[in-house]
Amino acid sequence: MATTEPAANLSTSPITWSAIVEAHERVRPRIHRTPVLTSESLNKLADAQLFFKCENLQKTGSFKIRGAANAILSLSEEEARRGVVTHSSGNHAAAVACAARWRRIAAFIVMPKNAPPVKCRAVENYGGKITFCEPNVKSRAETAAKIQAETGAVMVHPYDDDRIIAGQATAAKELLEELPELDAVLAPVSGGGLLSGTCLGAKGTRGSVVRVYGCEPERADDAYRSLASGKLQALDTSDTMADGLRASLAPRTFAILKKNVDGILLVSEQEIVAAMKLVWERMKIVIEPSSAVALAPLLRSSGHTEIGMAATAKPKVGIIVSGGNVELKV
Amino acid sequence: MATTEPAANLSTSPITWSAIVEAHERVRPRIHRTPVLTSESLNKLADAQLFFKCENLQKTGSFKIRGAANAILSLSEEEARRGVVTHSSGNHAAAVACAARWRRIAAFIVMPKNAPPVKCRAVENYGGKITFCEPNVKSRAETAAKIQAETGAVMVHPYDDDRIIAGQATAAKELLEELPELDAVLAPVSGGGLLSGTCLGAKGTRGSVVRVYGCEPERADDAYRSLASGKLQALDTSDTMADGLRASLAPRTFAILKKNVDGILLVSEQEIVAAMKLVWERMKIVIEPSSAVALAPLLRSSGHTEIGMAATAKPKVGIIVSGGNVELKV
Repeated sequence: MATTEPAANLSTSPITWSAIVEAHERVRPRIHRTPVLTSESLNKLADAQLFFKCENLQKTGSFKIRGAANAILSLSEEEARRGVVTHSSGNHAAAVACAARWRRIAAFIVMPKNAPPVKCRAVENYGGKITFCEPNVKSRAETAAKIQAETGAVMVHPYDDDRIIAGQATAAKELLEELPELDAVLAPVSGGGLLSGTCLGAKGTRGSVVRVYGCEPERADDAYRSLASGKLQALDTSDTMADGLRASLAPRTFAILKKNVDGILLVSEQEIVAAMKLVWERMKIVIEPSSAVALAPLLRSSGHTEIGMAATAKPKVGIIVSGGNVELKV
Repeated sequence: MATTEPAANLSTSPITWSAIVEAHERVRPRIHRTPVLTSESLNKLADAQLFFKCENLQKTGSFKIRGAANAILSLSEEEARRGVVTHSSGNHAAAVACAARWRRIAAFIVMPKNAPPVKCRAVENYGGKITFCEPNVKSRAETAAKIQAETGAVMVHPYDDDRIIAGQATAAKELLEELPELDAVLAPVSGGGLLSGTCLGAKGTRGSVVRVYGCEPERADDAYRSLASGKLQALDTSDTMADGLRASLAPRTFAILKKNVDGILLVSEQEIVAAMKLVWERMKIVIEPSSAVALAPLLRSSGHTEIGMAATAKPKVGIIVSGGNVELKV
């Protein structure tokens, strides 16, 4: 596997290949090497060979622990003493609380007061200290800034942070090390931390021979519009059921994606539900709606051509299954 | 790994270690080597190190394909031409249909007319030919016998068959090859095919240093009573939610268990629901109630002593997660 600085594209990113390799060394002893699962029946439906990198089976139930652990484990002793702070209503919150506990430091988590109880419990179980805010961007940022001012805690942003992106890159790195023959990798896109990392991790391992696509709900299509227009676009609405994909790109992630991503594929809410149900039923794994977004494009007849393959090809496609944190009614 | 005839106990079984090794060679190219998953939060709850052998992620969604494939792939050409017949309302039906398709032979499946539609669809998807019967043992056996008489098809019994048991043994063989340090392995017991195979596969790989326990619903406790009394007992009731565990031991499986199993642990319906919910939530995998039966004993305070360990020990326990076929309401 590539361990020296490779691939044309990567050199234009401020995140070096060494940073990703170091991130991997740093987090590897703490996290699961998640399995790559296959399903014959889904292969048939997609007329492709699909390889699911199961980050839903990762510690804390999502890939977010990769970035959070890399950021928190790489803090200096002085920084660590002050603790960490973040704002998130979802998987990043639990990941930061978990990684902070590994390092035995304080984790201050700002969550909207309407966050699902199950997500709050997860943060509390890892010993995170929750401060509730109003459910809007302004209140979230202000509350986090106030805590930062009071405690001196280090901000661990969910995606606008090179250490986070380098951590998220390790999922695609593992996938491409295991399956160098992949034609393409698909990952959901929200703030762009996972997708940026997937581009850098996949192309860092295999070069531009592997294409990387972001998958996004039609109802939260800022990445699609930003890349189409070449200018960072705001999110007008975000009422998608894919609750992990309601954030929008930051300048940092937009810059990486502009240079590295091969395209953004949009999917409807109906396609998300159908893909999620298929995975639960056929693969026997619990995935959240955000993860289904990265399978959905492959289930439509235009799927092959959308990822740059002939309609008659049998592409080998990796899918980053981002997480499995859903409220269950068993 | 052991490849020669080992272990005192095994020599008393009519199923030789070579038969298990051959079964493994036969089915390996066709089936998944299922992942072994761990969960820190479940480890804490059980105060143990748990290793889940995920046969819910196996082809057809259960371990049953191991036995069915071994039986069907080892038929002579002459036998195979006549096709196969079985009776099952559940996972064995789909497994036989699937393995018969691999061999391109007919599969006649007798199913009770009240079988869940999802199970019938699975059989049909694999090209199995369903004949419905009344939902009782007599009608099932008579209908299968009639088909056998008419077609000459070979009966592939769900568990009363050495080739089936040798196939099921390969799950525990894989688990112990990967984790030779296990103190104990737990598997659900119904007709005893999986549990017999687990005894032979685990002890064949590691000898009697690894203990094997069967787990059974209180509401379908024939294996418990049979082993306690030393005489094969009938099943009085079988109204457990663990729909895969409503059959009772055959003389063949009883004989193997008498010599090889270290005990049978009973669990209540409430314990089954609680264990199933925990696995879905914490591990993000879909398991059926029958699978939860093999985790449930470890979640009670007496769990350690029930598997022959000190209450203060941190045992390493393998759990055979038998399947993931449940009707989903997504």
